[in-house]
Order: sequence, then structure tokens, then C-alpha cells
Amino acid sequence: MNIGIIGTGMVGEALATKLVQLGHAVKMGARSATNEKAAAWVQKNGKAASQGTFADAARFGEIVLNCTSGAVSLEALRAAGAEALRGKILIDVANPLGEPDQGLPILATAGKDSLGEQIQRAFPETRVVKTLNTINVDVMVNPRSVAGGDHGLFLCGNDAGAKASVRELLSTFGWKEFIDLGDITTARGTESYLPLWLRLMKSLGTVAFNIKVVR
Amino acid sequence: MNIGIIGTGMVGEALATKLVQLGHAVKMGARSATNEKAAAWVQKNGKAASQGTFADAARFGEIVLNCTSGAVSLEALRAAGAEALRGKILIDVANPLGEPDQGLPILATAGKDSLGEQIQRAFPETRVVKTLNTINVDVMVNPRSVAGGDHGLFLCGNDAGAKASVRELLSTFGWKEFIDLGDITTARGTESYLPLWLRLMKSLGTVAFNIKVVR
Repeated sequence: MNIGIIGTGMVGEALATKLVQLGHAVKMGARSATNEKAAAWVQKNGKAASQGTFADAARFGEIVLNCTSGAVSLEALRAAGAEALRGKILIDVANPLGEPDQGLPILATAGKDSLGEQIQRAFPETRVVKTLNTINVDVMVNPRSVAGGDHGLFLCGNDAGAKASVRELLSTFGWKEFIDLGDITTARGTESYLPLWLRLMKSLGTVAFNIKVVR
Repeated sequence: MNIGIIGTGMVGEALATKLVQLGHAVKMGARSATNEKAAAWVQKNGKAASQGTFADAARFGEIVLNCTSGAVSLEALRAAGAEALRGKILIDVANPLGEPDQGLPILATAGKDSLGEQIQRAFPETRVVKTLNTINVDVMVNPRSVAGGDHGLFLCGNDAGAKASVRELLSTFGWKEFIDLGDITTARGTESYLPLWLRLMKSLGTVAFNIKVVR
């Protein structure tokens, strides 16, 4: 499958690399078509890897992943453009946090809104699925490294078909337990979890953990 | 042990009943010393059960539990009084949420403060331990009803001795996995989890669940 990555940070690079390893053609998008981090990534990942602008990556992908920092996600996606994102599945991995150490929410409307919803409202013809935002990047791409993969991944989005496609894609990463929370407004729930994630990280002394929902 | 309960709602009643069943002497405190709900509870629970004002309950307990709604917790505890709460362990079970259906945080400072911290600041000579606020009341008092008790309970507080005492008490409820998140500021983490808990409840169609932290 052709997949576009918006963002060249640690999360974008790890997801892009995993997707190339799984046999997909991946274009990493940046503000500039000649971004150095994207070029270095392409260099290392062979002919299935390519680079371009945010818009190039969005146009390229059947599925597009927002891997930018939450504070700049809307700006980056606007640079990609509604036209390039039209009809596409957009996996929103970003969290609306400020300084990572502090874990402070940057949305003044936290609890009454979410970045996932803001993105869905800004791009009504794009099928936004919020997921992967509740774990560290190493766990995202290698869920079996934690408790053999026996832990949960949340899905939030308005489009059932899009959620099914995302589930199928992420199953190939090793994800086994998906919890469909409902429409995109449920992203308020998973984005609100981050302050707890940050305290767990400090208390456990590792980022290699997740939660499992038990009944 | 003598235990004081601040609040006569569902949470206060369930915890008070459980504590009487476990052999403790429990005084349920209300705004009025003759509160009808407290009287009915005393009637049902025999001679180990008693009632009084918030201040009576706080004075009575070696351990005191704040089981009021988060929106009125500070007011109720002020009615109990700093003198009655001095030196006591105060287990803060409350969540700073408005309408339960909405799950909206009522703290304008959510993420930068927490109800647990507000209570600790208001009563500096009381040893506040925030816990039990991440599960439904039935799970609080009967953790083995969910996955045989194989799930986690968070502890937040400044006083290690107080956390050890709370852990010991809650072990007798059947709690097995305690996660000490650190000082009382970590209550920001567990209070922030509530919006996710509410979406999980809707998605799972039950309140009989919890999360387990896995590594």
C-alpha cells in the first residue's frame, strides 16, 4: 500500500521505517521537499522510501499518518492541504501536549474538545482515526515487546470502514487488542490519558509499558 | 480501626459498609448529625456503625475517607475542620468532575493542579492519599469481581507511611496491584484519566472494568 507520513520526527521515522519493512511504499513529508532528516531516512530505507512536501506525502498515501507534534499538527496538515487529504484515511498519532516533561495540555478546551476533533473539523472530507497516541513510539511499532502484546490500543473515529482498515494495518505491527471507543469525540478520552502516562513513565522508570483493559 | 467517612452518597455508603464488614468501627459524617441517609445506613449495619457531622466523623477516624462529590469536597472538608483532620490519613476518593454524563473537568487548572493537591494544600497537617478514584464503586470494594483482581490501583501522596497504611487497608478489600505514582501532584495523572474511563464505560457497556499496567 502507498502510505504518506506527515512529519520527520522520531515518531514519523519509526512508523515510516516499520511500514517500509512491512512492504509498503512510504513517502515522508516535510515542510520542504528536500528536508535533510527525510533525505537521511530515504537513504537508509531503499527504493520503497521516498520524500516530498507535506502535500506530496498526503497525495501519495492511501493512508496518511499525522506524526507531527500536536502543537503544530493543524498547521502542518493545512500545508498538506484539504485537496490532497480528501477521502484519505488520516491516522492521527499526535498529542496536544506542551513541554513533554510537564505534560501540560495545550488545548484551553481540554475535556470539551480534542486535537482529533479539531483535525476532523478542519478536514471534513478526510476520515480521521485517532490511535497510537497512548504509547511510546517503540511500543507503537513493536507491541509484542511489552507483555507479549497482551495490552490494548484505542481507536477513535467517525468512519467504521476507516477504523477497520487501520485495525488491519496495525495488526501487521503485532497489535492484537483493539478497543473501539466510538466517534472522534472519544479522542478527548485518549488525549486526556497522557498526564497519567507521563506519571507512570516516571514511576516505572521506563517508556516500555502500556495498559490493558480488563473486565 | 476507627474510620471516618465524609459523605453519604453511593461511594461513602459502599466503602462504609465494606469497612464494617471487615470489622472496623465506622462513623458516617454528613452536614447534619441526624442525616437520614446516614441514619438508614447505621440502622442496617449494627453497632460498629455510627453517624455524626463531618467534624464528628473526622475526629472519630484514624483514617478518614473523602467520599463527597469533587465539586463540594473542599467545602465539606472545611466543615469537618483542620483541627479534626490534623495528623490523620485522609483517603481522597473524589474526582473533580461536573455532570457525570459529560465527564467535564471542573478545575479550570486541570493538568496544572488537581483536587488531591488542593485538599493537601488546604490541610497541610493532614496526610492526603489519593486513590480509588479510577474505578467504579463496586470495583473499589470488590476488586476480585474484575479479572480475579488482576488489575491496578494508583496511590498518590506525599507521606510514604500514609501510603503504606492505605495499601495495607485496601489489601483487605482484595486489592493486589498497587502503583505508587509519587507525591500528591501525581493526582493530576489519575484525575485526568477520568475522561478515558467514561468513554471506556460507554464503549464496554459496563462499569465493571479496570486497567492493568503491563510492562
